Amino acid sequence: MMEEERKGFPSACPAPSAGREHILLAHGGGGRLMSSLVEKLFLPVFGSRQLGARHDGAVVEAGGRLLAFTTDSYVVRPLFFPGGDIGKLAVNGTANDLAMCGAKPLYISAAFILEEGLPIETLSKVVSSMQEAASAAGVSIVTGDTKVVDKGKGDGMFVNTAGIGVIEHALSIEPASIQPGDAILLSGDIGRHGTAIMAVREGLQFESTIESDCACVAGLVGELLEAGVEIHCMRDLTRGGLGCALVEIAETAKRGIKIEEASIPVAEEVRGACEMLGLDAIYVANEGRFIAFVPEKDSAKALDIMRAHPLGRSASKIGKVAEGSAGLVTLKSAVGTSRIIDMPSGEQLPRIC
Amino acid sequence: MMEEERKGFPSACPAPSAGREHILLAHGGGGRLMSSLVEKLFLPVFGSRQLGARHDGAVVEAGGRLLAFTTDSYVVRPLFFPGGDIGKLAVNGTANDLAMCGAKPLYISAAFILEEGLPIETLSKVVSSMQEAASAAGVSIVTGDTKVVDKGKGDGMFVNTAGIGVIEHALSIEPASIQPGDAILLSGDIGRHGTAIMAVREGLQFESTIESDCACVAGLVGELLEAGVEIHCMRDLTRGGLGCALVEIAETAKRGIKIEEASIPVAEEVRGACEMLGLDAIYVANEGRFIAFVPEKDSAKALDIMRAHPLGRSASKIGKVAEGSAGLVTLKSAVGTSRIIDMPSGEQLPRIC
Repeated sequence: MMEEERKGFPSACPAPSAGREHILLAHGGGGRLMSSLVEKLFLPVFGSRQLGARHDGAVVEAGGRLLAFTTDSYVVRPLFFPGGDIGKLAVNGTANDLAMCGAKPLYISAAFILEEGLPIETLSKVVSSMQEAASAAGVSIVTGDTKVVDKGKGDGMFVNTAGIGVIEHALSIEPASIQPGDAILLSGDIGRHGTAIMAVREGLQFESTIESDCACVAGLVGELLEAGVEIHCMRDLTRGGLGCALVEIAETAKRGIKIEEASIPVAEEVRGACEMLGLDAIYVANEGRFIAFVPEKDSAKALDIMRAHPLGRSASKIGKVAEGSAGLVTLKSAVGTSRIIDMPSGEQLPRIC
Repeated sequence: MMEEERKGFPSACPAPSAGREHILLAHGGGGRLMSSLVEKLFLPVFGSRQLGARHDGAVVEAGGRLLAFTTDSYVVRPLFFPGGDIGKLAVNGTANDLAMCGAKPLYISAAFILEEGLPIETLSKVVSSMQEAASAAGVSIVTGDTKVVDKGKGDGMFVNTAGIGVIEHALSIEPASIQPGDAILLSGDIGRHGTAIMAVREGLQFESTIESDCACVAGLVGELLEAGVEIHCMRDLTRGGLGCALVEIAETAKRGIKIEEASIPVAEEVRGACEMLGLDAIYVANEGRFIAFVPEKDSAKALDIMRAHPLGRSASKIGKVAEGSAGLVTLKSAVGTSRIIDMPSGEQLPRIC
């Protein structure tokens, strides 16, 4: 922070007012700075209702049908990591964003920004991995684009995927739909993706290699919807992790959220890695985990469905939407104390996805 | 080329066979190398019917309706140029790709890859320009993403836009639909975008500033379709210009194409700039021009509609689809000689869009 301030970078407010502010790594981190960029720069200009919903994708009407539409760029380093690579991440990430809108993912686009000098074999591996992930997710990669930038003006490769899904239910799945009393279900243990990436970057060895949880959860979401679970909101726990997802939903919906630390599963090796790396698992990125807000009456049924699915075996109920305390997320720790979960200014780990 | 070979880069074949090849700037140029990358690397792996159609976007079915879906990343340098900027380019480019599928553009996504240190004011200007272009094109920017990469690992900003449009006619607008005898109509004079960018890069001054033709042609295309013009294929003349577009269509459709140089409008200042810069206008990128393949019977009507539209005032019939000579594009020069138009290996101007 000291060094940033010396360079004339602001330490907090990214409002584009004075013309002296610059983009920081933290603006891409899924935390407070990114949120502020969206609220102060993108929303006032683009101003579409869909962007304003602060959801993982947009729900749009086309030709009389409701569709979900989403996009994400991927800049993860390294390109290959235990449990995945930039291509698998891009396909699953976009399919998951569609699933979080309650849509069945159908079509994915693939756009590459390649740095001059990238081995074609690297591109080839990523492309194969994307196709493998697409087949597993039941989506087709139907359109694409390739751009090349001069050596030193990129970083190997960046991938953008956009996706279209179709919505076949009458629910409004978005932050504004959560209700006091809603149960908050978490589909599995948290922190694997972020710690897997960080362990590779830092060259850390653990007893067992931590693998990213990178996976497509659309099938599991489809089962919940088919079973008639009245889902109010979902969110996959990528940049900023469980913590930022909860804060963003609470603030958008102007509702309070109470969660219990003891009910949040964290694998032993992930807990160890977080301790070594000085990370808080609640803010660590995941790529195959999501939370669902459902009425208490549907909570047990939804948990049963999750736990019967390979991607939801360690699903648990982690808390509920509270009466009052609008916009605040409160965590009750294992020893019984309470603390407010806030959004950090940026991501603990830059370029995690 | 010599220098590339010294570095161990191949001068021609980008097939991912031996594992020794690397990405060259030319792989992003819209010419032979990019085409080869698509054919040898992307198509065999992704293998969707839509990618195989070699069109500007994919025509897909969702919920019983036909949609067009497309994506493009933008890496243009400089970010701002006479007649436009990276944001206007991104919105119009994606809207145009949808229009080239015969779709009415509806929704656009906006994904940014920002380099740490980018002035927020620059981002703000681009975002405003995107919204202005979206309003003019009648599309909504409904979803987005922001990633930040470390200083020195990007180049200011890259933008990706994807788009969804709805198809409301029964035509199959794609290369495979062109027929011998089809008239080839060009919507306006060529070469403005590429020469505008190049003039800025080289610091060239002409009597009048050459402005990019960057514009959304979806309105004009909509008028053609509404008037019942039986469009067989369309293509906007971006990277690789008119020349590469014609070759790609001829090769995909396995048809011959004959065009006449004298009927291709090139503005005087663009012609002068091309001479100074050593460029062939036929391969220079445009961002608001397209070709349409229509049956001869509809040719006059279509030209009338084009010329009555502000973006088609200098439209002309430049040639026709020939019997025989499958895959070849032949240009009859102003002095009566003929030459084969081939696809150059890359773009004359890297990072033009």
